[in-house]
Amino acid sequence: MKIAVDAMGGDFAPREVVKGSVDAAKKFHCEIVLVGDEPQIRKVLEETPGWEKLGISIHHTTEVIEMGEHPAEAVRKKKDASVVVATQLVKDGVCDAVLSAGSTGAAVTAAQFILKRIRGIGRPTIATPIPTPGSVTLLLDSGANVDTKPEHLVQSGIMGSIYAEHVFGIKEPRVGLLNIGEEETKGNEQAKATYELLKNVHTINFCGNAEGRDVPTGSFDVVICDGFVGNIVLKFAEGLAKTILGLIKDAVKDGGIFAKLGALLLVPTMKKLGKRLDVTEYGGAPLLGVNGVCIIAHGSSKAKSICSAIGVADGYVEGNVLDKIRDTIIREEQLAKAEEEKNMQTEESEEKV
Amino acid sequence: MKIAVDAMGGDFAPREVVKGSVDAAKKFHCEIVLVGDEPQIRKVLEETPGWEKLGISIHHTTEVIEMGEHPAEAVRKKKDASVVVATQLVKDGVCDAVLSAGSTGAAVTAAQFILKRIRGIGRPTIATPIPTPGSVTLLLDSGANVDTKPEHLVQSGIMGSIYAEHVFGIKEPRVGLLNIGEEETKGNEQAKATYELLKNVHTINFCGNAEGRDVPTGSFDVVICDGFVGNIVLKFAEGLAKTILGLIKDAVKDGGIFAKLGALLLVPTMKKLGKRLDVTEYGGAPLLGVNGVCIIAHGSSKAKSICSAIGVADGYVEGNVLDKIRDTIIREEQLAKAEEEKNMQTEESEEKV
Repeated sequence: MKIAVDAMGGDFAPREVVKGSVDAAKKFHCEIVLVGDEPQIRKVLEETPGWEKLGISIHHTTEVIEMGEHPAEAVRKKKDASVVVATQLVKDGVCDAVLSAGSTGAAVTAAQFILKRIRGIGRPTIATPIPTPGSVTLLLDSGANVDTKPEHLVQSGIMGSIYAEHVFGIKEPRVGLLNIGEEETKGNEQAKATYELLKNVHTINFCGNAEGRDVPTGSFDVVICDGFVGNIVLKFAEGLAKTILGLIKDAVKDGGIFAKLGALLLVPTMKKLGKRLDVTEYGGAPLLGVNGVCIIAHGSSKAKSICSAIGVADGYVEGNVLDKIRDTIIREEQLAKAEEEKNMQTEESEEKV
Repeated sequence: MKIAVDAMGGDFAPREVVKGSVDAAKKFHCEIVLVGDEPQIRKVLEETPGWEKLGISIHHTTEVIEMGEHPAEAVRKKKDASVVVATQLVKDGVCDAVLSAGSTGAAVTAAQFILKRIRGIGRPTIATPIPTPGSVTLLLDSGANVDTKPEHLVQSGIMGSIYAEHVFGIKEPRVGLLNIGEEETKGNEQAKATYELLKNVHTINFCGNAEGRDVPTGSFDVVICDGFVGNIVLKFAEGLAKTILGLIKDAVKDGGIFAKLGALLLVPTMKKLGKRLDVTEYGGAPLLGVNGVCIIAHGSSKAKSICSAIGVADGYVEGNVLDKIRDTIIREEQLAKAEEEKNMQTEESEEKV
């Protein structure tokens, strides 16, 4: 397997991106094409003895899309931007997947323009795995689209379900619709219309509305929502975790000798727990719905997250998820059509009676 | 001050509601009317010696609105429901405020039907205080309305700002619009339209878009959003806190003698921190925008939360927030009209030139 990595994308690029790629090449025995400014990339690589023996190569590019730029304009104008060229490598069949920790908007736009959407899919969707006590909940869409149509939210559910099954190994994933109450009649217009459609989907295990609290507790395996809500919830979780951690550190610092000793004794336990809940263990969120494997990593990704994100790409490719999404979308269309015809026949025969 | 408490509303009603009311009567030296089934209320009261010397009375009612009921239907049909009667006591001027930990929908509907909206206000809004490291962030709307019109979100901002200033004592509260990016052009249609309107509001200190992470960190004093988003974010926070706490407890239990000792040594520090972040310290969320003081408490409220919620009612009434909202809405209307006239005059004189 060969992965194109946008070496210039992310708050700590290219250093941490290159380092994480080297780690991944060792860990997953995959080939990696580092796309970006060759001198800068080479400088970091040369700090890592033995990198030449790994399947790592450099694809030189001269442009970078910055965080503040308008995604569509930037992707159109900067033909030699690292994220654009990396995505093109997948389109051309040179690489099996693309990974970027740069501007999410630019990565999504490049994927849409270059790889194009899967036939039948209205909107691609970012699927973010959230660690739960038992396993993981896939939250999608976490920011690719806002004001999403109900039929596109349904497609998110189908794609998320396939991903959870074939990458996380969850049989018949429990799919929930993020809403403000359990009852079918609850929610805004978008949620109510989506619920109606979800009831008639054949290929997923739709289990009703999920409330906000169901996301971290893991009561559902896949939770669907509009990208506006998903993005806010994820960033809220990020802010909350950071705030609480900071407050605990301050409290221990101000807490005297016993508190400090207590904290010291708890370090191994907390480290173990931290590892279990560590979002960097999941590293990347796949962009589902485009004709190619595209993984979005967090902008603040360090080497560890980049390495995990390459692992995500690996699972996505090996699980053959793309083909499964294509097949399921076609099957779902056929089943819906068959049902419609059946209903029409029933109506006709009822009319005759 | 006299507060009508819906003694039958909440998961632990009437026991915890009555107990919390007794505590509040002592703490805030206020009169309390416990509205609900007299025999049940009296039974709990009699466990508390000396309650007769406090300003507590019982207003007997025969009906209760259950959690699953349709709010509007239930409020219309059950004229003798505890929440309906308690709200009526405010309307009739017998009490200064109403508090309920029962069905939020029923409490909001009763307030809308009986107290009516403040003139000029399109939708009432629930303002939930969220503890932050430095102070508190007021998140509104946290669930009273979904698919809210931009002009109603703006009114939420005005009301929240007044509340934060006069109840929390924050001078010129920083008001933010919950969105998926800092830039003015980000967000869904609702957020973009609301941003445009907020720029021209005279009576608040609008500081731009707030991202999800800004809510717990306290970068804004007041954060406005649609009730759909607010409700999901709050319930998500609730689930996350519960999940993490459970995991820490399990980790300590499985962590051997050193972990247990460490946890023991940390207890006082964590208790102090917990108290600082304790949502039950804030207890209740005011429903802003109706002609009367109405406080919504969490369904799972225990005595402590009920007592704090009564404290919230106290601050609301003493701060004269209702009159200030009425005055500001009128002033804002006048300022907008004056500006419009000025613009028209400028256009006219430009045309003449």
